[in-house]
Amino acid sequence: MIGSELQALIQLLAKLPGLGPRSARRVALHLLKYRTELMIPLSEALHTAAQALKICHTCGNLDTQDPCAICANNNRELGLLCIVESIADLWALERSGSYKGYYHVLGGTLSALEGIGPEQLKIPALLQRVQSTGVREIILALNATVEGQTTSYYLADALKTTKAKVTALAHGVPLGGELDYLDDGTLTAALGARRQL
Amino acid sequence: MIGSELQALIQLLAKLPGLGPRSARRVALHLLKYRTELMIPLSEALHTAAQALKICHTCGNLDTQDPCAICANNNRELGLLCIVESIADLWALERSGSYKGYYHVLGGTLSALEGIGPEQLKIPALLQRVQSTGVREIILALNATVEGQTTSYYLADALKTTKAKVTALAHGVPLGGELDYLDDGTLTAALGARRQL
Repeated sequence: MIGSELQALIQLLAKLPGLGPRSARRVALHLLKYRTELMIPLSEALHTAAQALKICHTCGNLDTQDPCAICANNNRELGLLCIVESIADLWALERSGSYKGYYHVLGGTLSALEGIGPEQLKIPALLQRVQSTGVREIILALNATVEGQTTSYYLADALKTTKAKVTALAHGVPLGGELDYLDDGTLTAALGARRQL
Repeated sequence: MIGSELQALIQLLAKLPGLGPRSARRVALHLLKYRTELMIPLSEALHTAAQALKICHTCGNLDTQDPCAICANNNRELGLLCIVESIADLWALERSGSYKGYYHVLGGTLSALEGIGPEQLKIPALLQRVQSTGVREIILALNATVEGQTTSYYLADALKTTKAKVTALAHGVPLGGELDYLDDGTLTAALGARRQL
């Protein structure tokens, strides 16, 4: 007995990552409860963002301008290029406030099973970018997953011919981490990379 | 370095139940990835639903018409009235396909702590509805929570003066339920209401 308008809305909401049919119904009811405060503004924000945002052709970030605000900013450290898997990872690094160079978003990781090779990611564009601009250091900031690390090794190999230094994020105990709850791999990495105090 | 349009969208998404700042960012990126297939249709579905849907004055259900399709349907069982806490509960009963009467949505449960009395819920409207229409049986289908059961007891008491029979959903072992994983209260209820085979 759910009307077609509501059914259509619930079906679209259920397609969002992390939402299923049940939570989509809950979200729809919540939205209808707060129509003027939430539902209408969300509808408009979706429309505005869909129209305004574009992918930066240089780095793959999302912004209202192309090149994006990061690529267009001349005050960042020119010689530094950080390779990330996704825009969300770029945002995470930006939130940390500890990186002032430029980015290159791959758009995923290599996967023989899913048929994702270097051409499906932005790896040719990366190699060209590194060669045509004076990059001093390339920081591989891919996820510490099997796919991320495989892609890291591939990139380190592919970037050997360039003059740039290739580095990767350190592995170890995360801040606030308790040894008892850490996996063996992290402990092994942290022990192997131990440093003198 | 997130643009204001995107920031506004993420902030609105983070207000949805079950989503936090991190999952809102993930949803926003997913939407931007599927602009024509998901983002624009969702924007439009939100707008359409916000305009079209209204609360039924008789039962409290959401529909494009008032009275809603259930209340306007003369083929349902006239003498049966089922009391539920929320519209989601009404939908759950409708999905089960096992109930053919009418509904009354309370809009919550009684709560002395939160200052929710009978007037804040649709209890006066319920009493009036029961008196003015020939209801034969009132089924209390509130949640099996402390608040739901308290409200059930209050309603059973308030409905004593009417001629209608007041019933409640049975408690017991849910289908597919394993005794080992059930709480003591459910087991006690199931044991107490045991039936001869």
